[in-house]
Amino acid sequence: MNAAVGHDQRVPPRSGVGFELQRGQSLTVIDPEGCQVADLLAFARGDVREVISNGRTFDYEETLRLTTGHRLWSNRSRVLLTIEDDTVGCHDFLLTPCSKATFRHFYPDKPVHRGCFGNLADALSPWGIAEDDIPVAFNCFMNVPVANDGSIAVLPPPGKPGDRIVFWAEVDLVIGLTACSAYASNGGTFKPIDYRID
Amino acid sequence: MNAAVGHDQRVPPRSGVGFELQRGQSLTVIDPEGCQVADLLAFARGDVREVISNGRTFDYEETLRLTTGHRLWSNRSRVLLTIEDDTVGCHDFLLTPCSKATFRHFYPDKPVHRGCFGNLADALSPWGIAEDDIPVAFNCFMNVPVANDGSIAVLPPPGKPGDRIVFWAEVDLVIGLTACSAYASNGGTFKPIDYRID
Repeated sequence: MNAAVGHDQRVPPRSGVGFELQRGQSLTVIDPEGCQVADLLAFARGDVREVISNGRTFDYEETLRLTTGHRLWSNRSRVLLTIEDDTVGCHDFLLTPCSKATFRHFYPDKPVHRGCFGNLADALSPWGIAEDDIPVAFNCFMNVPVANDGSIAVLPPPGKPGDRIVFWAEVDLVIGLTACSAYASNGGTFKPIDYRID
Repeated sequence: MNAAVGHDQRVPPRSGVGFELQRGQSLTVIDPEGCQVADLLAFARGDVREVISNGRTFDYEETLRLTTGHRLWSNRSRVLLTIEDDTVGCHDFLLTPCSKATFRHFYPDKPVHRGCFGNLADALSPWGIAEDDIPVAFNCFMNVPVANDGSIAVLPPPGKPGDRIVFWAEVDLVIGLTACSAYASNGGTFKPIDYRID
């Protein structure tokens, strides 16, 4: 049994984990210190070519601002996760996981990090999921306002210590989850993420 | 040589085409009658696992409203296409291609159509591209305003007869292009799309 069933588990700063979530289980993602983003991916365990899709989700949910009651849809038009509870109401599904390439682009003076993209690829490799299989993640607690002219910004996340979002698994899933590694996304410092399965 | 080199070619209503575009060539997508959307996909010809990515593009271009001078980036953080000219300035990169599933969801009283998703999969199959390889397309001329609360709408496209958008190929590409099949996206009627390569 996954050690996270009934117990909080910690994702250390700038790292990621992969695990299975069964249909009917809930996954709680917690921001234990506040102001920290967690990138979440969900693949169908039966065929990992099926994965959450921002475009299908925006289309069916008719909004970019996803919170309690909204569903995360797959590229095959199936609901993989439903958001059961959400104490923040601020998440992003527009932007791809940070990566070596995004570090070089946005932070040319900082050390290059493999970012959430590298952390997810590494954590998901036991299920045969490779870099090219990684789409836009659901970025829990990420603050990406869209201005009236369509321009976007990455601002510090508004989460307070203990804030959480809870997902209900509609099918058996493989989950990838990170404590995000990018400077702007996390207000300049890197904190852990906690999660539990119930 | 592709018959579209130097000559307008027509994509009939509710259909799609696939073709190769060489580095340094430009692709002009034309709305010949006005009020019609064209879904565009671009894959790297050398390895079709590399494809345009809305998330990478939003991240690097820092806007949802892409027009002249903006670039379409791949999942591998490479520029595949640059927008050279654009007489409309209204396009969408949020929503996935219409499909049998979206017809059943949004138009339960209408005949089910395979939509741009089916048309793209069929047109791109000679290059080994399958349904699961189809991400969010760049939807030329599509009108998807984002409200302040994040909600989105699909409104009639504002294109007038002869409006166009021109893309410059930064690498050798495989292109998928449709005349979109969904009611709301095209103001309720289905018109052709023209294109040419120069």
